[in-house]
Amino acid sequence: MRILLTNDDGIYAPGLRALRNELKHLGDVTVVAPATEQSAAGHSVTLLNPLLVSEVFEDDGTTFIGWAVEGRPADCVKLALLELLPDPPDVIISGMNAGSNAGINVLYSGTVAAAVEGAFFRRTAIAVSLEYDKKIEDFAGGARLARRVIEQILARNPAAGSLFNVNLPVLERGPVRGIKVLPQNVSPYQEKFDRRVNPRGRTYFWADPEFRCADPHPDTDVTALAEGYVTVTPLKFDLTDHARLAELQGWGLELT
Amino acid sequence: MRILLTNDDGIYAPGLRALRNELKHLGDVTVVAPATEQSAAGHSVTLLNPLLVSEVFEDDGTTFIGWAVEGRPADCVKLALLELLPDPPDVIISGMNAGSNAGINVLYSGTVAAAVEGAFFRRTAIAVSLEYDKKIEDFAGGARLARRVIEQILARNPAAGSLFNVNLPVLERGPVRGIKVLPQNVSPYQEKFDRRVNPRGRTYFWADPEFRCADPHPDTDVTALAEGYVTVTPLKFDLTDHARLAELQGWGLELT
Repeated sequence: MRILLTNDDGIYAPGLRALRNELKHLGDVTVVAPATEQSAAGHSVTLLNPLLVSEVFEDDGTTFIGWAVEGRPADCVKLALLELLPDPPDVIISGMNAGSNAGINVLYSGTVAAAVEGAFFRRTAIAVSLEYDKKIEDFAGGARLARRVIEQILARNPAAGSLFNVNLPVLERGPVRGIKVLPQNVSPYQEKFDRRVNPRGRTYFWADPEFRCADPHPDTDVTALAEGYVTVTPLKFDLTDHARLAELQGWGLELT
Repeated sequence: MRILLTNDDGIYAPGLRALRNELKHLGDVTVVAPATEQSAAGHSVTLLNPLLVSEVFEDDGTTFIGWAVEGRPADCVKLALLELLPDPPDVIISGMNAGSNAGINVLYSGTVAAAVEGAFFRRTAIAVSLEYDKKIEDFAGGARLARRVIEQILARNPAAGSLFNVNLPVLERGPVRGIKVLPQNVSPYQEKFDRRVNPRGRTYFWADPEFRCADPHPDTDVTALAEGYVTVTPLKFDLTDHARLAELQGWGLELT
């Protein structure tokens, strides 16, 4: 099995390294990942700047890992599939992200966007994120758990282009309670900014790192993750609100 | 009516200026938009850097337009709603983008992401994009057309949080044929990169500006736009593939 591994924390991030060590047991892993951290990059892509790439090796200097791309997570997947990989991958894994990607944060996530980009190419793609609890994360333990979940998903032979969002709970909180397949939570987060003035008198804002989902639906990724479950959510990239399409078609919009 | 206007081409972009001139006829318009171009920013947000803001005025130096934010389109909407606007807007308009945002390009679009962010806050939001055909776009004509479409949508009193993606065809190609309400096309684009080597021997790639949708579905935004229609697509931000949820729940994934 040929595995393309990418992420949004950057090619040198510990979560990617830990996951690569586990995925090597499942097949041939090639990494194409951003050279630098791209957290919250969403599905941004690089149109106006050149994408520099570098080959990356293990510390022995000879074992080839893959390519670092000075771009976004989605750029990495495009370049991997169109330019860098000699053969197309059987599966694209994105992660393991330092921090969960559940609820509406799915839309901000570069980790998820890289998997979505893989699905654009009709490849099976799995985004994997490890919940963060302000401690040093147990990336090795998370990666072992991620491997078990990935193995199970792939054993079901999902159709090409299937897209999965996997979140792993904080491992230090206690034993993982199981795996739940649930939809994305869609309720808003409570966010705030810290307003400051710089020495030149200009106002600026820092996004507060504390944000919480005030009203998570009980049967969603956000809730099950907080309860200690691994969550698996099948995703798609058709943003059309099909439930409202007929209503809008009945509005009789016209160029008056 | 209070209107928040944003975009991804930047606060000084001609498409935003043209649309603001039209929207002033519909209500009080306040602009909160990126200081610089953020095309293809997707739903990226700024977590690690400060968001500097500046007040922006018309050329008379006294007529207040709004705020320029050194951040992403989605940052602008967050800051507008949480910090900058004295009163919440009745509607959020994002655009008018120079270039269409149809098909899977919807996911790359900062214009659409700003509207999605508005819908996160349960505000009615409309993304507006003008198809691009390598000529100087008729932003004034596009904005007049956009206003007519926006007026019609708002006249139907959409529920709070309703999200719309509006694309306008190239106006120079001939008379607009009408408005069609259609889903987003989901087939891939054919893309390529231009591989080069820099004077220091490093490989880099430029994304080729030419890309086309090889297999557009007939009843989708991409096709109708090419045929000269204004397209309106209701969007949502639940990426869950609900059609596959039950199947996956039946897989019996467990921690072996």
